[in-house]
Amino acid sequence: MKKHNFSAGPCILPRVAIENAAAAVLDLNGIGLSLIEISHRTKDFEAVIDEATNLFRELLQIPDNYKILWLGGGASMQFCMVPFNLLNKKAGYANTGVWAKKAMKEAKIFGEVVEVASSEDKNNTYIPKGYTIPTDLDYFHITTNNTIFGTEYQTDIDCPVNLVADMSSDILSRPVDVSKYALIYGGAQKNMGPAGVTFVIVREDILGKVERAIPTMLDYRTHIKEGSMFNTPPVFPIFVVKETLKWLKSIGGVPAINKINVAKAKLLYDEIERNSCFASPVAVEDRSLMNIPFIYSEKCKDTDPALFLDFAKSKGMVGLKGHRLVGGFRASTYNALPMESVQALVECMQEFEKSVCKC
Amino acid sequence: MKKHNFSAGPCILPRVAIENAAAAVLDLNGIGLSLIEISHRTKDFEAVIDEATNLFRELLQIPDNYKILWLGGGASMQFCMVPFNLLNKKAGYANTGVWAKKAMKEAKIFGEVVEVASSEDKNNTYIPKGYTIPTDLDYFHITTNNTIFGTEYQTDIDCPVNLVADMSSDILSRPVDVSKYALIYGGAQKNMGPAGVTFVIVREDILGKVERAIPTMLDYRTHIKEGSMFNTPPVFPIFVVKETLKWLKSIGGVPAINKINVAKAKLLYDEIERNSCFASPVAVEDRSLMNIPFIYSEKCKDTDPALFLDFAKSKGMVGLKGHRLVGGFRASTYNALPMESVQALVECMQEFEKSVCKC
Repeated sequence: MKKHNFSAGPCILPRVAIENAAAAVLDLNGIGLSLIEISHRTKDFEAVIDEATNLFRELLQIPDNYKILWLGGGASMQFCMVPFNLLNKKAGYANTGVWAKKAMKEAKIFGEVVEVASSEDKNNTYIPKGYTIPTDLDYFHITTNNTIFGTEYQTDIDCPVNLVADMSSDILSRPVDVSKYALIYGGAQKNMGPAGVTFVIVREDILGKVERAIPTMLDYRTHIKEGSMFNTPPVFPIFVVKETLKWLKSIGGVPAINKINVAKAKLLYDEIERNSCFASPVAVEDRSLMNIPFIYSEKCKDTDPALFLDFAKSKGMVGLKGHRLVGGFRASTYNALPMESVQALVECMQEFEKSVCKC
Repeated sequence: MKKHNFSAGPCILPRVAIENAAAAVLDLNGIGLSLIEISHRTKDFEAVIDEATNLFRELLQIPDNYKILWLGGGASMQFCMVPFNLLNKKAGYANTGVWAKKAMKEAKIFGEVVEVASSEDKNNTYIPKGYTIPTDLDYFHITTNNTIFGTEYQTDIDCPVNLVADMSSDILSRPVDVSKYALIYGGAQKNMGPAGVTFVIVREDILGKVERAIPTMLDYRTHIKEGSMFNTPPVFPIFVVKETLKWLKSIGGVPAINKINVAKAKLLYDEIERNSCFASPVAVEDRSLMNIPFIYSEKCKDTDPALFLDFAKSKGMVGLKGHRLVGGFRASTYNALPMESVQALVECMQEFEKSVCKC
């Protein structure tokens, strides 16, 4: 049975990227060697990492004064690398959920941390607005898409200080004005590729302004200087990123995928609103294009979540279980998820309402 | 033409591991999904990481009071994680070359560093001996195999303080008495798997004794507590590690591979000694089983290294260029390199002596 992969990450990737990755593991470019058994200093791999970098710059229109890094360790490592490199005295964070709080926690090791805004009062079901960002901050940090709670900044905000953004779960899903940010980072394992590599986009002039000694591997300048090859980079994940970006370019880039993402999300949000069995816990204006949590409606609130999950599973749907902090269900609709999968989910929800749910 | 892959790392891996990895990228266990598009929290991936851990424990006979971690970031990240977690006042390092010096450099950020022994006086062509390790050190750090210079500790040393070892390039090549070490780490991309994952073997009781605040991702206790799943681990690299360890077990484990490694190295060292065109720069008693540098002999010292490299390349040999700090040539003879490749190299050296070199 065809699987519909709604996993929150690692998640569905373009099939062509997966097939090309498998082929390169067997033999890269017909050289008689596997992608994973050649030196990262070979021209074969240098071409891979260069192409990944160039495609990323082109697709997101990253200005020339920003450097692009490919690092190991995951976005969670960036939670400490950002303050290690940027926090002199005081940083501000918007608390929009679990990942934002984790980032904030690490910053407290390095200096004063101000929670400039928070959505905790309503279980992070919205994006805070109307707050003032202090001008004496070293930087202000936001999480542009909140994978768990399904909220997302709909636009690039104006910020009077260096703006740092974790875009792990919405990078390349919509056009971004990179020039409004000082640093953008994220784990690759949503819209960019598999687990094991993290991207950093950094405006070089913000670095070198803290007085502490920074361990070499945690210093962005190390990786800028060495083109992400100070040590052996995560070769295979970077190859899959390159293939994923090639696919994105081939279908028309970020504007094209954004249109598809908007259409996919509309189809699903409309069904959640229409269907008497389901409801959205998220404020309408802040709903994510990438992660769409939904719960049983008031009428069905005593129904076992397993009833819908098992029914959906029988139709080939995977990864629909909601995060324990929200409950219910979550459909992640990342770039590589086809419209057909959302249509199949909508049909499944309709059939559930009509024939399965007893409420 | 069949390739003989003498790359220093990333390097040759068992063919069966490569084939199984490529198959899993297309479809893991017949579940209809790729290894790289499933959540790391699925039972399918949990089985992978558990099997990798159990095989590693079994193959290296790692005692139960040691934890095994799979981390991103590379062994270079361990250069700062070790002192972050272990260095209160003073640490000792044996300086046996480039990687040891890099490790030492990071430790200096965290406390006093004593260079207990060094082989720098003779371009790191030997392993220092006969020194006394101070008993007031928080730990003593060694690099058991020096990839660049081709030296290797032949036995597990006695150490009066916590012994920390970087075994990136000789892990699983010989039996090790893990109980003599407090912590062992290494990048996987030699004998264990592809680039992108780092192993740590740590005796838990040595942790929690420093007073500094440790960022969550850099604290070994985080990863012990979460079973290397605090954040999304490098899924694909861990899968290939599992497959590589399965292969090693299937051929008889560490004692069996050690015999093969000894035989491969003897064949090559004997030829280097016999062949009038070549010489070894390394002290006989400290020669590595894994990385075998050789240079032109006195007689041939004015010959262009490209003459041998091009000739070897014409016979399908790759990765033989020596590191710039040693010059000449280097054959890395990691676990997965078959005896046939060493035989082919020896024949190539003999033919070079007989017909190609004009000295």
